[in-house]
Amino acid sequence: MSQGTDRPVDERTGVWLVGARGNVATMAIVGARAIARGRTGTTGMVTEREQVSSLDLPPVEGLVFGGHDIEPESIVAQAERQRDRNGVPDADALEAVRDDLAEIDERIEVGTAINCGAALSEESERLDEDLAIREVVEQIGDDYESFRDRHDLERLVVVNVASTEPELPDPERYDSRDALERAIDEDDRDLPASVCYAYAAIAGGHPFVNFTPSTGNALGGIREFAAENEVPHTGRDAKTGETLVKSALAPMFAGRNLHVMSWEGHNILGNADGLVLEDEANAAGKLATKGDVLESILPDIDHNRVRIDYTPSLADWKTAWDYIHFEGFLETEMKMQFTWEGSDSALAAPLVLDLVRLIAHADEHGHGGLQPQLASFFKAPLGVEEHDFSLQLNRLYDYAERYR
Amino acid sequence: MSQGTDRPVDERTGVWLVGARGNVATMAIVGARAIARGRTGTTGMVTEREQVSSLDLPPVEGLVFGGHDIEPESIVAQAERQRDRNGVPDADALEAVRDDLAEIDERIEVGTAINCGAALSEESERLDEDLAIREVVEQIGDDYESFRDRHDLERLVVVNVASTEPELPDPERYDSRDALERAIDEDDRDLPASVCYAYAAIAGGHPFVNFTPSTGNALGGIREFAAENEVPHTGRDAKTGETLVKSALAPMFAGRNLHVMSWEGHNILGNADGLVLEDEANAAGKLATKGDVLESILPDIDHNRVRIDYTPSLADWKTAWDYIHFEGFLETEMKMQFTWEGSDSALAAPLVLDLVRLIAHADEHGHGGLQPQLASFFKAPLGVEEHDFSLQLNRLYDYAERYR
Amino acid sequence: MSQGTDRPVDERTGVWLVGARGNVATMAIVGARAIARGRTGTTGMVTEREQVSSLDLPPVEGLVFGGHDIEPESIVAQAERQRDRNGVPDADALEAVRDDLAEIDERIEVGTAINCGAALSEESERLDEDLAIREVVEQIGDDYESFRDRHDLERLVVVNVASTEPELPDPERYDSRDALERAIDEDDRDLPASVCYAYAAIAGGHPFVNFTPSTGNALGGIREFAAENEVPHTGRDAKTGETLVKSALAPMFAGRNLHVMSWEGHNILGNADGLVLEDEANAAGKLATKGDVLESILPDIDHNRVRIDYTPSLADWKTAWDYIHFEGFLETEMKMQFTWEGSDSALAAPLVLDLVRLIAHADEHGHGGLQPQLASFFKAPLGVEEHDFSLQLNRLYDYAERYR
Amino acid sequence: MSQGTDRPVDERTGVWLVGARGNVATMAIVGARAIARGRTGTTGMVTEREQVSSLDLPPVEGLVFGGHDIEPESIVAQAERQRDRNGVPDADALEAVRDDLAEIDERIEVGTAINCGAALSEESERLDEDLAIREVVEQIGDDYESFRDRHDLERLVVVNVASTEPELPDPERYDSRDALERAIDEDDRDLPASVCYAYAAIAGGHPFVNFTPSTGNALGGIREFAAENEVPHTGRDAKTGETLVKSALAPMFAGRNLHVMSWEGHNILGNADGLVLEDEANAAGKLATKGDVLESILPDIDHNRVRIDYTPSLADWKTAWDYIHFEGFLETEMKMQFTWEGSDSALAAPLVLDLVRLIAHADEHGHGGLQPQLASFFKAPLGVEEHDFSLQLNRLYDYAERYR
Repeated sequence: MSQGTDRPVDERTGVWLVGARGNVATMAIVGARAIARGRTGTTGMVTEREQVSSLDLPPVEGLVFGGHDIEPESIVAQAERQRDRNGVPDADALEAVRDDLAEIDERIEVGTAINCGAALSEESERLDEDLAIREVVEQIGDDYESFRDRHDLERLVVVNVASTEPELPDPERYDSRDALERAIDEDDRDLPASVCYAYAAIAGGHPFVNFTPSTGNALGGIREFAAENEVPHTGRDAKTGETLVKSALAPMFAGRNLHVMSWEGHNILGNADGLVLEDEANAAGKLATKGDVLESILPDIDHNRVRIDYTPSLADWKTAWDYIHFEGFLETEMKMQFTWEGSDSALAAPLVLDLVRLIAHADEHGHGGLQPQLASFFKAPLGVEEHDFSLQLNRLYDYAERYR
Repeated sequence: MSQGTDRPVDERTGVWLVGARGNVATMAIVGARAIARGRTGTTGMVTEREQVSSLDLPPVEGLVFGGHDIEPESIVAQAERQRDRNGVPDADALEAVRDDLAEIDERIEVGTAINCGAALSEESERLDEDLAIREVVEQIGDDYESFRDRHDLERLVVVNVASTEPELPDPERYDSRDALERAIDEDDRDLPASVCYAYAAIAGGHPFVNFTPSTGNALGGIREFAAENEVPHTGRDAKTGETLVKSALAPMFAGRNLHVMSWEGHNILGNADGLVLEDEANAAGKLATKGDVLESILPDIDHNRVRIDYTPSLADWKTAWDYIHFEGFLETEMKMQFTWEGSDSALAAPLVLDLVRLIAHADEHGHGGLQPQLASFFKAPLGVEEHDFSLQLNRLYDYAERYR
Repeated sequence: MSQGTDRPVDERTGVWLVGARGNVATMAIVGARAIARGRTGTTGMVTEREQVSSLDLPPVEGLVFGGHDIEPESIVAQAERQRDRNGVPDADALEAVRDDLAEIDERIEVGTAINCGAALSEESERLDEDLAIREVVEQIGDDYESFRDRHDLERLVVVNVASTEPELPDPERYDSRDALERAIDEDDRDLPASVCYAYAAIAGGHPFVNFTPSTGNALGGIREFAAENEVPHTGRDAKTGETLVKSALAPMFAGRNLHVMSWEGHNILGNADGLVLEDEANAAGKLATKGDVLESILPDIDHNRVRIDYTPSLADWKTAWDYIHFEGFLETEMKMQFTWEGSDSALAAPLVLDLVRLIAHADEHGHGGLQPQLASFFKAPLGVEEHDFSLQLNRLYDYAERYR
Repeated sequence: MSQGTDRPVDERTGVWLVGARGNVATMAIVGARAIARGRTGTTGMVTEREQVSSLDLPPVEGLVFGGHDIEPESIVAQAERQRDRNGVPDADALEAVRDDLAEIDERIEVGTAINCGAALSEESERLDEDLAIREVVEQIGDDYESFRDRHDLERLVVVNVASTEPELPDPERYDSRDALERAIDEDDRDLPASVCYAYAAIAGGHPFVNFTPSTGNALGGIREFAAENEVPHTGRDAKTGETLVKSALAPMFAGRNLHVMSWEGHNILGNADGLVLEDEANAAGKLATKGDVLESILPDIDHNRVRIDYTPSLADWKTAWDYIHFEGFLETEMKMQFTWEGSDSALAAPLVLDLVRLIAHADEHGHGGLQPQLASFFKAPLGVEEHDFSLQLNRLYDYAERYR
């Protein structure tokens, strides 16, 4: 029997993944289905912590997955490559969910990759090659709707987990809903894919999560639109590795009034994300959101650099080396270094599930617009200035407390 | 003219350092006087952060130092050794305060080292060799009083910065004020020095800070006494290096529901503290308070070890290597490592000044007993369960906010 | 058809593994058979380097394995545990050689564990429980012979890969062949297992490799016996991880006349070897051979400590953190740190095969006694003072050159 | 009395430093004079190792320093800045040699910086602004000669320690002495400064050391000229930090037949050298010689990247983080990481003195042309393929052995 079709209506939350055949999406689907099949636990999921699990959230087992992608290689093939190159998922987990993955893969529609930069395969297909922007947006919206209808979903959450786009030049030209809609109508081909997906989600009343550094719902016009339509949305750039550590460590230096002279961060990684980031244009956006965390927590920092390099043998593993040179009492110079070795997808995937569940809760309870309680998930939390991880997380605990 | 004698009465806060010729005390005095002389800034002082500096605190420039020690070597000699071995303080700073140090050194009285373990020099002198415990306590109390009188001090804060004592066996036998006072009267020679200093401070109404892992005011009997007398006291074991980092990092693993399988912490250091800790008995107390932080924040941790080794060439520098092996989503095993290279005394010294200023404020405003707003300073904060550094620090900010 | 029975006589070299069901032996057998089955390459084998492969060595594919053990759990079960806990060997490699392992497991005889320390299971069986030492030695010798006869082997190499024994007190009492044989005859129950295996090997004319820090052929009496009988033997304590790195790095400090003040080495590991080393007595021998490398290369080192701790979650992985504090020109203090994360068995296993092949070559060409050309393989190379890895390796290349 | 004027003629070796007011030159002069004044030892000098010190070398105390520079700031000012920013030399050592430095500074002549890249100060002066190349070369040669005459020197060694030049395009156009001399005569303004200094040295019969990655004596035309004139010369790019470690460690991976998949090297430093290297053109030469070491020792390496970044707070300190991802037996992936924290000038300076002494010895004994016994000092040893540090060093020991 197919996954989830025997679940009660009120549990039927849909998850629409933009970039559904990518690393993060694949791992999120594998994990959700492995949990549903009783093959793995929920380690790594924030919503399973005691402080949050009291909320009445849609169960992981009941999530129904679909999505857009522009690449034809199936989720099963992706998962096999991940298993072979990274050892995650392991062979047993993959076998347990192989049929689920195949079923989900058939629900994936062709998307857009307009202004997504260079690293596409020759087999990729794209809506935007033949359609005007307005038509692209409408097609995307139709895809959302027909998925919801077909699966009789109570609610559909759209999550952008596609590769990082190059930074959008002059985003302020789309700062109002009007300006944005005019651009769509006039077929302004500067608009990036992430904005198309976000616009279609808000237009359809679907909660939207921007898991990436791409523009998407960070655009002024989208924010205004979401506020007017009272659709919950959140982002951007999920905080999974080095930046997560920074947001936990930097407050320590600040809190003790230690003066950080230099914070050097070198990241090496070997997955497609790394390859995309080799392109300087695509990297710019990511580096900006990574750098902001330190500037915000440590306003007196003298020198702050982040590098991301592509190291093929690491596959999906990402290693960061950070070197922190700081000054204390009596001008004493001291140092801290750390290395972080994580599987990028395994760190990101549970957060996708967390965000889907938490934004569905917000939607159910009528919280439209930005979601400050979700700040702890992001490198550049929309609408929140706080970058201290513990304090960000406290906002989520406070939110959960209100619903006890 | 002598330091501070020209200051108005309301600024005259005394600082009585138990272990006044040790590394930490010396560095605190050098730093305070260098600030007073305009030779250094206040980097490293929590009380100079914007969130706290709004409090009406005694100025660093006005602090008047005295103390107990059992070793005859002068503060000047100590400071010179620190300069030569560690480069902290630097030669210029030391010259600027040399006369101040010499003056302060003359105010240092012979103290007790009863049950302090083995590492004393042959030149050391001790009150407890000839006196009964009750007499020791009275002599200490008299020393506090005569210092206050002589310098016309508004308030005297006693700070224990002496070397770590061996753990006191069966401390619960002194769990009430009655039991403790009976033991003092009966000349119970199991009582350690830190308890004598704490008792005398509370008896005299002097705020007491236990900067070390030694028993001191952690004893039930002292806590009851302080509560009854409404004398503020705080402790224990200042959080300056590896444990500080742990209290910032461990909440990140907890907050993301990542399962820490092993956390190995290796500390190497070369100062007298390291030498004392080579004695397993003395190390036991320190390792216990260091270990507790992780157990508290990460209740599911499988393996948690802390080692402290003596590496002479490091002098006052302390290097920690921590290796964290954790499990995430889909049973993925990942790793984080860090090294921390800090000058122990330079990290500790400003916190001595912070604690003096903050406990003086509490005393002025009538807050007797334990001081939960000071939890962020300690590895084992008395009366506070919270070990997350950011959340501990928030208590201090909330305290400061109340006085705005 | 069974492994190897179709091979020509001159390729039939036997490998008798003492501790045949342990980590290292299992991995060596898995690897040799996986090479024979075309499932893996020879990465990690020194004898496959161009400088050495010109020697006429017995092919890996033709090696015939047998051995002693005292534990009943099969090699297959061991290999499965290694696969599950460490991911080495991988599932495919294990399947390819599963039948070979089962066949080899049937050739394993009950051995002795006399004076091997505490960490034996309840199911273990031991020759020495019922037999006198002389009888133990004879039984071992008979096991060697009957294996050679049964498999029609040209030559049998005995390799000790059993867990590290506690250090033998006063080994000099067995410094001559006479003294040793008298002790065997008098049933001196201070003799450790490793010496029994070595004695029986030399007596039977079988080349002997001591892969461990245990006494074995390092004993004066064994060395004299081997020299008289012209049997090649070598050891001890294979250099696979942290010490290997030390033997490559320390010559750099020496060569540049940099003064190493402190070299701290912390090892954490999670396999049975780690558990055995938790017993301080067993650790003493290992720490001694590890420490000697630095003392030999850096005679002026001021401080040199090695720690080995048991960290269960690491399984067979061993992580070392080394901190090197050194002084250069103009008394400048500088630092180097490294971490090494290796799979202990995967590093050791290919060296077992290398040593078997190389000592078989020595035997074939009449080189009895110690084998200085094999020094690069060992932490404490018998009969060689040189600890610089590059220079040790040059001896092997020179040896190979002589046979071109 | 002036330094050295009372020494016997046969000890009078001159050292002409190109870039005499730079970090390395300053530290070499400070060190040599501090040794002469009995204020420091010879730690860090290879020529003081037992294996080399048997050679009859010019004593450090007798070296007479002079040089070229284009910047007016004095050696004393340089040394003071080094003391303040790096703590090397320390205040006492600097005071002891201050007068010597001032005297030496007066002997420094204006040099050329043609094709040296961008990072010159506004105060700099340059011979090449007004003179033709032939005239520049002649002026340099005259400076060498008049220094030798004035100080009655037996021998003058010219050492290039100036900042790294951008790579020379198409160096093969100067591959013969004829082509080079024609270019000089035709005022070919593509020729870089380092070649002018080298040409003038060879023409005057002065031994030449290229301590930097700049072209200098690596040019075919210079090599031919030196061979014909039988003038000893050596280079290039002194091996002081990360690359030194690589040349010690990489042979370990090669020697054990471990397959290095990725070797990432990140260097951060804060001195003028770092600033110059920020200019990509200047960095290219340095990165090339650094990268070659690994490619040579590990021909099968899959990925090898070196980065050099400028981190101002580090001053003259250079920190390298290297991450080595390698594969062993049974395709097991393993990792090694190291960090190296060194004072660049303190590591380089003693090698300047070593090279001066050793090339003077070669000159005295009639060894013209390239000096393979000096390969261990360089990242790109001219005329030597061997990059294994131990084996390179053995060449020096063999050379010394020949003169016992």
